[in-house]
Amino acid sequence: MSGAQQQTLLDVETPCLVLDVEKMDQNVRRLNETIAAKGVTYRPHLKTAKSVDIAKRILPSPACPVAVSTLREAEIFAVAGFTDILYAVGIAPGKLARVIRLRETGVDLSVILDSVDQARAVAEASVASGNRISAFIEIDSDGHRGGVAPDDETTLAAIADILGPQAALRGIMTHAGSSYSSRSRAEVNAWAARERDAVVAAATMLRKRGHGVPVVSAGSTPTALSDVELPGVTEVRAGVSMFFDLVQAGIGICEVEDIALSVLTTVIGHQRERKQFIVDAGWMALSRDRGTAAQPADRKYGVVCDIEGRVLKDVLVLDANQEHGMVGLREGSDAPLPDFPLGARLRILPNHACATAAQHDAYRVVRGGRSPVVEALWPRFGGW
Amino acid sequence: MSGAQQQTLLDVETPCLVLDVEKMDQNVRRLNETIAAKGVTYRPHLKTAKSVDIAKRILPSPACPVAVSTLREAEIFAVAGFTDILYAVGIAPGKLARVIRLRETGVDLSVILDSVDQARAVAEASVASGNRISAFIEIDSDGHRGGVAPDDETTLAAIADILGPQAALRGIMTHAGSSYSSRSRAEVNAWAARERDAVVAAATMLRKRGHGVPVVSAGSTPTALSDVELPGVTEVRAGVSMFFDLVQAGIGICEVEDIALSVLTTVIGHQRERKQFIVDAGWMALSRDRGTAAQPADRKYGVVCDIEGRVLKDVLVLDANQEHGMVGLREGSDAPLPDFPLGARLRILPNHACATAAQHDAYRVVRGGRSPVVEALWPRFGGW
Repeated sequence: MSGAQQQTLLDVETPCLVLDVEKMDQNVRRLNETIAAKGVTYRPHLKTAKSVDIAKRILPSPACPVAVSTLREAEIFAVAGFTDILYAVGIAPGKLARVIRLRETGVDLSVILDSVDQARAVAEASVASGNRISAFIEIDSDGHRGGVAPDDETTLAAIADILGPQAALRGIMTHAGSSYSSRSRAEVNAWAARERDAVVAAATMLRKRGHGVPVVSAGSTPTALSDVELPGVTEVRAGVSMFFDLVQAGIGICEVEDIALSVLTTVIGHQRERKQFIVDAGWMALSRDRGTAAQPADRKYGVVCDIEGRVLKDVLVLDANQEHGMVGLREGSDAPLPDFPLGARLRILPNHACATAAQHDAYRVVRGGRSPVVEALWPRFGGW
Repeated sequence: MSGAQQQTLLDVETPCLVLDVEKMDQNVRRLNETIAAKGVTYRPHLKTAKSVDIAKRILPSPACPVAVSTLREAEIFAVAGFTDILYAVGIAPGKLARVIRLRETGVDLSVILDSVDQARAVAEASVASGNRISAFIEIDSDGHRGGVAPDDETTLAAIADILGPQAALRGIMTHAGSSYSSRSRAEVNAWAARERDAVVAAATMLRKRGHGVPVVSAGSTPTALSDVELPGVTEVRAGVSMFFDLVQAGIGICEVEDIALSVLTTVIGHQRERKQFIVDAGWMALSRDRGTAAQPADRKYGVVCDIEGRVLKDVLVLDANQEHGMVGLREGSDAPLPDFPLGARLRILPNHACATAAQHDAYRVVRGGRSPVVEALWPRFGGW
């Protein structure tokens, strides 16, 4: 896009998803510096971006490791040239045929598992196909979802023994999703230490039993940016960190000004007696995610900014219907509600980048806060 | 799909969206009978289905009136042959060029508005294009979103006068979205009466002032199925009513067994000490909608059924991450948690049909509860 055809945020249809590429670049740089200082590798979780353009921009080479949350992501990033892909959701036996089809194209697609039943299925599928599937054992470091307890030596050893000669034990991994409910940097650091201690303990134990454990993987956006050193960990995974969002700002892991993602919207009505106006971004454009509801500062359906991305003090999307956002002041605010005319354009910062981005099929790429020129349209995909 | 290629719910990839077409047909029949007995027309809101296959199945002819929530819906249903389309979200002046382009193909696309500024923009665009845009004035019958107060004669008359000779005042419309928070049939009936009284009062007043008001439109899924008679109303709009969902069941407007939509999922792990198991339907497949949270019976992220759609007593998706659903018993239940093996398939009923369906790009169509044969794949679309 250039010259006379150049679109700005005043021309594009609303609602749509806007990506400030300068902020994203800065966020990725910050993560890389944090991780490099700890001597570990970055395995970005591409479930947040779901965009080949973004994956290629943030990684120096398609040989770099990546994580995905669906097999469709794995297939699309494989076609784009990525070769070390971790499918980071517990594997179901019925999905192994699809895993093998992709591995047979030369991609090292790894699966994760936390049970003897899954290990048997992976070993059998490996033998049957003659393709040794890479597998990570998932460790439960926070009691919030899946994984083997880090001290459950019986189960860990049984899984490793079954994978043994048939499949390939690629590593140990964990994700402390509970870190998202942290309220301070100290809590984030505590979760990072728990992740580290859990995977290092499991890897050490399995190595003592004679198993090779090349990769020791941990991470979530908060813990990836913690102050904790990571001896014994080889790689860190994080997805939201490239965009950030209001939940991460609420934890204190970034500033609101670091958030690279927003939803562009248009004012479509006023209810001045109720001190509200209505925009064309409802929950279909913003998602139903209310991740800040449990935080000290509830941002409702999102923080409202002007078209250049400057935060409007205390102005929130207070409620949302499918295609309507009701905008007003946060409870207790003494700020004046700005009176935008019909047709005015605003940008809304998301509670949760993964959820909001998932409602859209492309990123409108802008640079910095001052220029609303749309430099590129980067498609994104969904589905399974 | 037939013969050897016939897929069942055991073969398709999970997670995916399943539509029980027999239940949908029965729900549509019920709505049609209710509305016909009141002598009004059905204008289905297609924002829930977003599927040409479904629109054609539930309507006897593409000449029947329909409502949509985005201009993309209007464009797709126009290509499919529909000619009377109401875009039921307050119009922004910047969208009128797109409205006119569609109207110039011969489709009677109507817009809605609730301000003098919008009326001026519609009148000006009509004059400039030589195409008299159809417009509905939106009435606020419940104080929850947009619309002119039904007794605000000054604004109503000003809007009608501005539309006057340039555009076409097609009608008056309202939507009592607050009916979704009803707790009883009596409350639903009260909202239906408020919708009716609001639009009939506004239409009567404008007619006395010499304006033609051919269409008087009201509706939401709860109020469309109320016991209230609707003299003076000419049409009723409803979207969820063709599928139903747990929110509507919680209001008492349908039974859980009437819900035609579900998400097919696979068991991918167990946490037996926590009395939970994990499925591959997280909020990406279920949506973040927690519409039942405010109801007496909170269904968390959805009610779990077996593969034939039979409800499993007290089994809910208690929490959800992006691609993980954590399944267990509702608080206080004394039912046993069924122990499904790894790879078992289940179906999850949605809190909110519009939100859950929006997470998918197709319906897997099945018939009745007993046969898991996938009879058809009906695409659905999103975006704006």
